[in-house]
Amino acid sequence: MTKYRFARRSAILGNSVFDHVPGTIALSSGAAYPPCLPDVVREATEAVGPLREEAMQYAPLMGLDDLRDEICAFVAKDGVKAARENVLVTYGSKSAFDLALRTFCEAGDAVIVTRPTYMTAVHIMRTHGVRFLDIGQDDKGLDAAELERKLFNLERNAEQMPKLLFDVPDFHNPTGVTTSLARRKKMLDLAQRYNFVICEDDPYRRIRFEGEAVPSIKSMDTTGHVISLGTVSKILAPGLRVGWAIGDPGVIRRMAMQKADGGSNAFAQRIVVQLMRSNKMALHIDEMVHHMCIHRDAMIDALAEHVPEAVVRAPQGGYFLWAELPEGTDAERLVELGIEEGVEISSGRLSFPNDDPGHFIRMAYSFTAPDEIRDGVARLGIAWRKLQSQANSA
Amino acid sequence: MTKYRFARRSAILGNSVFDHVPGTIALSSGAAYPPCLPDVVREATEAVGPLREEAMQYAPLMGLDDLRDEICAFVAKDGVKAARENVLVTYGSKSAFDLALRTFCEAGDAVIVTRPTYMTAVHIMRTHGVRFLDIGQDDKGLDAAELERKLFNLERNAEQMPKLLFDVPDFHNPTGVTTSLARRKKMLDLAQRYNFVICEDDPYRRIRFEGEAVPSIKSMDTTGHVISLGTVSKILAPGLRVGWAIGDPGVIRRMAMQKADGGSNAFAQRIVVQLMRSNKMALHIDEMVHHMCIHRDAMIDALAEHVPEAVVRAPQGGYFLWAELPEGTDAERLVELGIEEGVEISSGRLSFPNDDPGHFIRMAYSFTAPDEIRDGVARLGIAWRKLQSQANSA
Repeated sequence: MTKYRFARRSAILGNSVFDHVPGTIALSSGAAYPPCLPDVVREATEAVGPLREEAMQYAPLMGLDDLRDEICAFVAKDGVKAARENVLVTYGSKSAFDLALRTFCEAGDAVIVTRPTYMTAVHIMRTHGVRFLDIGQDDKGLDAAELERKLFNLERNAEQMPKLLFDVPDFHNPTGVTTSLARRKKMLDLAQRYNFVICEDDPYRRIRFEGEAVPSIKSMDTTGHVISLGTVSKILAPGLRVGWAIGDPGVIRRMAMQKADGGSNAFAQRIVVQLMRSNKMALHIDEMVHHMCIHRDAMIDALAEHVPEAVVRAPQGGYFLWAELPEGTDAERLVELGIEEGVEISSGRLSFPNDDPGHFIRMAYSFTAPDEIRDGVARLGIAWRKLQSQANSA
Repeated sequence: MTKYRFARRSAILGNSVFDHVPGTIALSSGAAYPPCLPDVVREATEAVGPLREEAMQYAPLMGLDDLRDEICAFVAKDGVKAARENVLVTYGSKSAFDLALRTFCEAGDAVIVTRPTYMTAVHIMRTHGVRFLDIGQDDKGLDAAELERKLFNLERNAEQMPKLLFDVPDFHNPTGVTTSLARRKKMLDLAQRYNFVICEDDPYRRIRFEGEAVPSIKSMDTTGHVISLGTVSKILAPGLRVGWAIGDPGVIRRMAMQKADGGSNAFAQRIVVQLMRSNKMALHIDEMVHHMCIHRDAMIDALAEHVPEAVVRAPQGGYFLWAELPEGTDAERLVELGIEEGVEISSGRLSFPNDDPGHFIRMAYSFTAPDEIRDGVARLGIAWRKLQSQANSA
């Protein structure tokens, strides 16, 4: 058998966050709700029909100009000033984040993250061999005071300073927390003072059920210290694979040069242009918000009934519910028992890049219908009681 | 102004291979011939219509099972034995190569390439910070004897051994050379002996105008030392952004884990499945071969007329013509003068990762119609005479 000489980063094989267990109710994945997937037959037909020479050819490295303009208009409504040169089209915000890592980080560099943080971002960062400077999070978001202390100490000790900060300030994945305005300002202030770049991952911002939006960090950035990572995955359809990065033109251009595959899929880009230009995307977002709110409520209610010991914070938007179980709970074991009962959730471990407290779980309410959510949580309740009785008899 | 702390690899900014000069006849880019772009309205309508739940949702990380099966059938006709577990779907062969680099190479590792080699592969390798072990090439392909000597010496001196070899054995980019069977066998033998992996980039293999196909290196690989990189970019349409890697299941799985963006675009994958299942792809390849042969002849004839000093080897297939100008010619200057005359070609420099002999150019005959090719080469002839008269008067 061939003994391959893999790179170190290949050792991350074991920790797949992409596999699902067939035959279980999927409360693990932030996939789109199937009844909400958009009908794009007209847009697709136009893209590959009259616009065939655009759709079937290599696309510009930076993305279609029309799409870059539409993205500028889209974020302008949300207070972000961007011109075409600020926008790079990518295959999604994950791919945009990967390009930011390629642009800024060598293996061994540190990236600031919340504790916990987005599991797939952890995975991507691991493939870059970066270190995690993880900072606590409360119901106002990243603990900026803790971050400030740590940065102060690093600088004082002449240690290597972090180059990037990754966060999901709106409806955080996994915790659902929305970062307060004061914290956002403080994060930006620290980014300017210590010269790191904030990657503001923004997939869920438009999926708000209630409450007032807080200005995005990017909208307050006057010094080019923020890269906004956007995507249509959560507001239109993940299958389109269209996302973007918005930032300083010099940074954006360097990120583009890190792309291995040239321009992204032109016809998916054209479909998004058409959906953005018409009011179809806006209507679709309204529909998503409507459904996701019902899903969230169904999950919270079911959890209160079946796993009353779980402490949850009702998120005002987004796709996820983060639950704290009594200290000492073995969440990894609960995931296994859940699968035996026919429901799949995620262990909090995937979201903690360093020490896992061990008793947190993440549940997605996006993909499954309300009835399935109730069924799934009921199954989780059975698993939960099994875990308790096993723990008691141990 | 913000002083960003970029990673070292960001310094490769200057060497963009993606930009084209507007208003010039593009003999620089291996883009598809627009009249040959396939009509996929029916396939696209089906993908986003009845199959919407597949098309608009996250795709499996490894690719659609149906597509992986079709790819197996496609390469089986060419002597490659592959099962679904051997196949990873990517956004193209460039993206597949990038994943192989991520999987095997740390910065500083060496990759074996031909001298010259594919310019975009050079770009991608530079973003990984690898070193180039460049080996001469003649009309039989990579100089396997030179490679053997170099490997022998590296091992004898206890130096770091290369981990990958990148080559385009069929209708090489840029030289058009097809590697002989003996050389292929020798390369595979060396890969096994010195335990490196051959990335056999295979975009042009089906675009053969004349002569007999030589077995692919992958078809002779019994030890998992070859990863075949495939794409539909040159046989269907680059805009589909569908490619693949075929290799050992453990390697393929590790490559999948290096993807930053999860599964690729499902509806482009579904379109390719439909085109592969019907005879549309086969017919389309026939059409491409027909046109590309005419394009090649037009370019060779025009070059003989307008730049008779250029020495070319007529490729038996593929997209490119590689021309050697008299020693001492400043090919970079010729590119500039060509742009002034309204034609864009590529300097050989982009294809030499290390020392550029300085007097080679690459021309693509794929994108432009025969009349434009003739016009473009005539303009190049004007630029060429200007360069000569400037050189004489200097």
